[in-house]
Amino acid sequence: MLQPSATDLPTSREACRALDAADPLAAARAAFVLPPDVIYLDGNSLGPMPAATRARLQQALDDEWSRQLVGAWNGAGWIDLAPRVAAGIAGLIGAHADEVAVADSTSVNLFKLLGIALRLRPSRRTILTETGNFPTDRYVAEGLAGWTGEHRLRSVDRERLAADPASAIDDDTAVLTLSHVDYRSGAMHDLARITAAAHARGALVLWDLAHSTGAVPVDLEAAQADFAVGCGYKYLNGGPGAPAFAYLARSWHAQARSPLTGWFGHREPFAFAPDYAPATAAGQLQCGTPPILSLLSLDVGVQLLAGLDGAALRAKSLALTDLFIARCLPWLGEHGLELVTPQAHAQRGSQVSLRHARAWPICQALIESGVVGDFRAPDILRLGFAPAYLRHVDAWDAAERLHAIMRAGIWQDARFDRQRRVT
Amino acid sequence: MLQPSATDLPTSREACRALDAADPLAAARAAFVLPPDVIYLDGNSLGPMPAATRARLQQALDDEWSRQLVGAWNGAGWIDLAPRVAAGIAGLIGAHADEVAVADSTSVNLFKLLGIALRLRPSRRTILTETGNFPTDRYVAEGLAGWTGEHRLRSVDRERLAADPASAIDDDTAVLTLSHVDYRSGAMHDLARITAAAHARGALVLWDLAHSTGAVPVDLEAAQADFAVGCGYKYLNGGPGAPAFAYLARSWHAQARSPLTGWFGHREPFAFAPDYAPATAAGQLQCGTPPILSLLSLDVGVQLLAGLDGAALRAKSLALTDLFIARCLPWLGEHGLELVTPQAHAQRGSQVSLRHARAWPICQALIESGVVGDFRAPDILRLGFAPAYLRHVDAWDAAERLHAIMRAGIWQDARFDRQRRVT
Ligand SMILES: Cc1ncc(COP(=O)(O)O)c(C=O)c1O
Ligand SMILES: Cc1ncc(COP(=O)(O)O)c(C=O)c1O
Repeated sequence: MLQPSATDLPTSREACRALDAADPLAAARAAFVLPPDVIYLDGNSLGPMPAATRARLQQALDDEWSRQLVGAWNGAGWIDLAPRVAAGIAGLIGAHADEVAVADSTSVNLFKLLGIALRLRPSRRTILTETGNFPTDRYVAEGLAGWTGEHRLRSVDRERLAADPASAIDDDTAVLTLSHVDYRSGAMHDLARITAAAHARGALVLWDLAHSTGAVPVDLEAAQADFAVGCGYKYLNGGPGAPAFAYLARSWHAQARSPLTGWFGHREPFAFAPDYAPATAAGQLQCGTPPILSLLSLDVGVQLLAGLDGAALRAKSLALTDLFIARCLPWLGEHGLELVTPQAHAQRGSQVSLRHARAWPICQALIESGVVGDFRAPDILRLGFAPAYLRHVDAWDAAERLHAIMRAGIWQDARFDRQRRVT
Repeated sequence: MLQPSATDLPTSREACRALDAADPLAAARAAFVLPPDVIYLDGNSLGPMPAATRARLQQALDDEWSRQLVGAWNGAGWIDLAPRVAAGIAGLIGAHADEVAVADSTSVNLFKLLGIALRLRPSRRTILTETGNFPTDRYVAEGLAGWTGEHRLRSVDRERLAADPASAIDDDTAVLTLSHVDYRSGAMHDLARITAAAHARGALVLWDLAHSTGAVPVDLEAAQADFAVGCGYKYLNGGPGAPAFAYLARSWHAQARSPLTGWFGHREPFAFAPDYAPATAAGQLQCGTPPILSLLSLDVGVQLLAGLDGAALRAKSLALTDLFIARCLPWLGEHGLELVTPQAHAQRGSQVSLRHARAWPICQALIESGVVGDFRAPDILRLGFAPAYLRHVDAWDAAERLHAIMRAGIWQDARFDRQRRVT
C-alpha cells in the first residue's frame, strides 16, 4: 500500500491557495463541470460530470444512434466498449485487463461473484461479512444464501476483523465479503492482510471497491485477491447509475461457474448457439446488452481518471482529509461532533465522517451554505474528498463553514428539520 | 387477442401513399429521427431515436447531473423514474403498474423470475423451453439449472408446443419459459392458450415479450400469466441497451422469493437497515442503482409508445407485413427464398423473415440499397416492421428493392461476402 509521508499542513487560506497553484493535479479540475459557489464533497455518492461527457453523449445521439442506427454496434464500436472501459479500470486497481468486466450494477456483480465463490468451496456453507457493510452487499449475500437454503450469512464486527481477521474466519466460511473503504466511517481495511488471513483459512475474499477505485490505490494482484466489485458513478465519475465492474482473478478464470450466464458472457454471442459456453477470462461476467448511453458516459470518466497519477491522487486525498480534520479537531468536541474516520493514513479512505445525533439538520445547513456533503443514517455527516477536482481551499472553506454553522447553531433552525429525503 | 380484419392490400405505390396519408399513426413518424433515404426494418433489434430524447438527455447532463449533482435524485425525480417507466410499460402489456419493474437487462430479469419460479415449485426440477428460443433465454436457464445442480433445462420444438402444449409439459416442469414472438421466424405463440395448458399441468410460465411489447398487443392479466420480461431498446425505442422490464403477477407478490436481492428492491433502501425486507409488489425485482442516462432515454420511448393506440399499431403492423408478404410471394420461390413467418395473423408478430442459404450477402446488398434489415444465423433475413414509424410505401419499396437485388443477382457480388460482423 502506497503511503505518502505526512504533509506539512497549511495554516492559512493563502497557504492553501499556494498549494493549489503548485498542485500537479490542478489541471484535472478543469476537466470537470462544477457549479460555481459549490464545494462538492459528495463525489463518493455521485461524481460530477466530466466536461467531455456532453460532447460524447451528443455524438452518441446525433451521429451514432440516430444516423448509424443498429450499425453503430460495429460502426461506432459499441460492441467493444465494455472491455475498453474494463481495461481502464483494471489499471486503477492493480488488475490485468482480462480480469475485469464492466457490466450491470455492483449489486448484480456481487451476486455473480458470491455465486462463483460458493461453487468453488462446495463443502462450506457460510458467507461472512461485516455487521456494518453496505446494505446491498449484505442484502445480496442474504438473498443468495436464503435462496439456496443451504447457506447462511454470518456477520462480524469491523473491529474484530481488522484486529484479528483469522479469528473471525472459520472452516465453514466459503467467502468473506467486505468493503475496502467503509461507506459510513471512511475506515479502510488492510486488503492484503485480510486476504491472506482468509486464504490461510481456506476462504475466498470478495472486495467491494466502491469507495476506493479512483481515489485510493488498490493492488489486487499483489494482494492475490480473488474477486472484487465496484461502482462507476462515484470516484470514476461515470454518471448516475453508471455500470459497475467486477474483477475475477486469473487463477479462477477456468474454474469459475457463474449462476448468471447471459449471451454477452458467451464465447460467441452472435453465433446464436443453443448451448452456453463461457467467454474466456472475466468476459464471462458480462450478461445482457449493456446500457450504452450510461456506458459511454462511464468511458469518459474512466479514461479521465486513468490519465491521472494514482500516487498523486492518493497524496492529495490524504492532504485534503488531513487538512480538514486538523481544522476541525480543535472544536469538534465542544459542538458534540465526533470524528469517526481514522486518523492513521493506512486506515483512511478518501472521506471524513463526523458523528452527531443531529447529523441530518447539520448536513442540510451545510448544503445551504454551499458545501454539499451527505447524511448516512442514523447519525453520520459524510464528506467525500475527491482528489481529482477538489482543492486545498475547498477543504479549508468547508471546515470554516461547518465551524460557523456549529458555532452559531444555524442548523437548529426549523427549516433544516424538514422531512428526510433520499440522497 | 385483438385481431383486425384482413386489410385490402394496395396494389400500387400511389395506393400506398394514399393509405399513409389517411393513417391515424402518420403523425407518430415525425416523433422519430430517421435518416433520409433509409428504410429502417431493424427496429426490432435497435429502435430509432425519438426526437424528444436529445433534449431530455441534454437537460439531464446540463441541468440535472452537472448543476444539481447528487441532489438530482430527488430534485429531478431520478429516484421515481424506474416506477414511472414501469407504469408506462404496464399499459402496453395488460398489466397493473405494480406488476412491472424496470431494471437491469432482459437476461438478468429472466434469471430473477426463473429463480422465483423454482422456489414456488420446489418439488419440480425442470425448466422447459423451446429448442429455438433466443440464446440468452436458454443460456440463463441452463446456467441457473447447472448452478443449483438440482435442476435441468429441457427443450421441445416450437411446433410441438404450439400444436399440443399439454403434451410437452410434464409433472416435473416447474416453469415453462418461451418467447411470445420468435426472434428468428417472427412466429407468435398463443400466449393465453399455452399459459392455461401449463397451469393445468401445475407449471408456471415466463414469457419473453422482447419482440412483442410496443408492436403486438399483449394482455398478461387476461391470460393469467405468471411472469414476463422484455427489452427496452426494440419497439420501445429506449436506446442501445436500455434497461429491461420484468412482470410479476399480483398473485405471486407475497410469495415470490428472488435470488437477487439488492438495495433498490428493499422496502426502505435509504434506511440502510442491515437486513433485507423486500419491497412490495414488483418493486422487489429492482436490484442496484439503475443507469439513469439510459433510463431517461427509455422513459422518452415508453411515453411515446404509451401515447399511441395499441389497436391501431397492431392493425398497421399487420397491414405492413401483409403488404410486404403479398408483394414478395410471387417471386420468392424462384430466387430460392422461403417465407418463414406465418401468414395467419394470429401467429404473426411484427416482422417478416425469409430463409436463404446466402441470407448474409443478401442482407448486405439490401442494406447497401438503403433497406436496413438484419441477418440471423444461419440463414435468416429478418425484416422488422415497426408500426409507429414505418409507412406503407416503405413496405412497398423494400419489397421492390429486394426483388431487384434477387433478380439482378446483385448480392452475388464479392463485396457482400466480407467477413461477418455482429449486429
Ligand atoms: C427474445 C429476446 N430476449 C432477450 C434479448 C436480449 O436480452 P438482453 O437485453 O439481456 O441482452 C433479445 C435481444 O435481441 C431477444 O430478442
Ligand atoms: C460500498 C457500496 N457498494 C455498493 C453500492 C451500490 O451498489 P449498486 O450500484 O448496485 O446500487 C454502494 C452505493 O453507495 C456502496 O457504497
